[in-house]
Amino acid sequence: MRSSAIPSPYLGDGKGPTAAQAARAEMRAGRFNGITRGMALGYVQCAMVTLPQRYAYDFLLFCQRNSRACPVLEVIDAGETEAKRSAPGSDLRTDIPMYSIYRNGVRVEDVPDIRHLWRDDFVSFLIGSGITFDQALERAGVPTTRNRWVLNTSTPTDPTGVFKGGLVVTMRWLTPEQAITAVQVTSRFPFNHGAPIHVGDPAALGCDLAHPLIGPPVERVPADLTALFWACSVTPQAVAIAAKIDLMITQAPACGFITDLEADKICTP
Amino acid sequence: MRSSAIPSPYLGDGKGPTAAQAARAEMRAGRFNGITRGMALGYVQCAMVTLPQRYAYDFLLFCQRNSRACPVLEVIDAGETEAKRSAPGSDLRTDIPMYSIYRNGVRVEDVPDIRHLWRDDFVSFLIGSGITFDQALERAGVPTTRNRWVLNTSTPTDPTGVFKGGLVVTMRWLTPEQAITAVQVTSRFPFNHGAPIHVGDPAALGCDLAHPLIGPPVERVPADLTALFWACSVTPQAVAIAAKIDLMITQAPACGFITDLEADKICTP
Repeated sequence: MRSSAIPSPYLGDGKGPTAAQAARAEMRAGRFNGITRGMALGYVQCAMVTLPQRYAYDFLLFCQRNSRACPVLEVIDAGETEAKRSAPGSDLRTDIPMYSIYRNGVRVEDVPDIRHLWRDDFVSFLIGSGITFDQALERAGVPTTRNRWVLNTSTPTDPTGVFKGGLVVTMRWLTPEQAITAVQVTSRFPFNHGAPIHVGDPAALGCDLAHPLIGPPVERVPADLTALFWACSVTPQAVAIAAKIDLMITQAPACGFITDLEADKICTP
Repeated sequence: MRSSAIPSPYLGDGKGPTAAQAARAEMRAGRFNGITRGMALGYVQCAMVTLPQRYAYDFLLFCQRNSRACPVLEVIDAGETEAKRSAPGSDLRTDIPMYSIYRNGVRVEDVPDIRHLWRDDFVSFLIGSGITFDQALERAGVPTTRNRWVLNTSTPTDPTGVFKGGLVVTMRWLTPEQAITAVQVTSRFPFNHGAPIHVGDPAALGCDLAHPLIGPPVERVPADLTALFWACSVTPQAVAIAAKIDLMITQAPACGFITDLEADKICTP
């Protein structure tokens, strides 16, 4: 049902590797270990959560029950290392610029390659990141690089097994016109967080404004701007960390897995 | 985040039971065992698949991998009989007018109550039915009661564990104007099959026109009508039946589980 890639400057010309394939090759070769924001624009970026198989059912069900925060784009079965559906030819162990290793819920180290840590019972979840629709917002005139935070909240998620905790949100401050456009644009990505879950007072979600996970200290919302809130893919990572699993691996902050999925087509996966 | 029920003739006045609650009460009391099409209009209807817990992970992952056909709206954990998220107070064992019992893939009987068959290891999946958006289509001037079929196809689903087989689709023949409206309207239900997956030639999907699962014998498409195709929630049932599980229970054909979810709000579950 999916048509072939649209020839365009950022999606590749159908002859050489696409920008997504080229980016993954650089990471695999160890030549890039920075943040992926702004790389391979037009392609869906994902958070990765890799955990032992015995947790896979509860984690998948947690994601189903909290799908606005946890849009699962692919599950890679135990014993496999290739995201064959969303990034054929990829290797989950090398194609992310930097990984974070968690032991019993503690981030013990960040490494650029996890081949030495890989286990045959690892199941990996690729979860759509809000970075994906930044380009669509920018095209529509909505700025995405400033007045943007990732915040913990006291809004509970729907718990499953050992996985439970507060929702994490992305907050953006926008002008009235930008706010309306942002609702319209993000609504076109129902399988990647979709429309905002709240607009207005951060207190309604119990946002922890004093300790943003990403972004500068939060000031008072300026009178001419409105705060909008999207469910964030940091949520599933946060609950998995809180579960204190013996060994879990994620992408390091702002170091996403770049898929071959085209953002503009994600409405019809 | 969800507001309270909209007072309206079909959604209840907020005082007595809603149409959905009233319908489930009739079924529980054994006073109704017919088809649910047209009942409690405005509420989301679901297909149900109940199977032993050892199949639950593979079935949930099959649904994730084939989400257009298998929009999971709720998973009811082993040991529980209430769809507490989508229909608080419900009982899955009595609140569907008629159930089909499958043993090793063979439909052995249809019964109005499954309390005597219930097992503590049963996990139940509620999967959104295309009936849900019929009312929205009708309101927009798209007829839903004629020129409508459910068909097997040779288009493969993405297999998981024992679950595999062809996609089942709903085909509708519409005028050009209705076809465009139908794409617009169903796009508003991304978590309940969403937009069509195909328009035009049934052969492109490998539709089995000779043996419709629902609907009269299929004639040639009239020159002034266009065929549109939606992924259908019969798909997960068909693959589960084909897997020949020792004991599986579903709703009987056209006898859906009526939830308290309001169809017009399902864009933001």
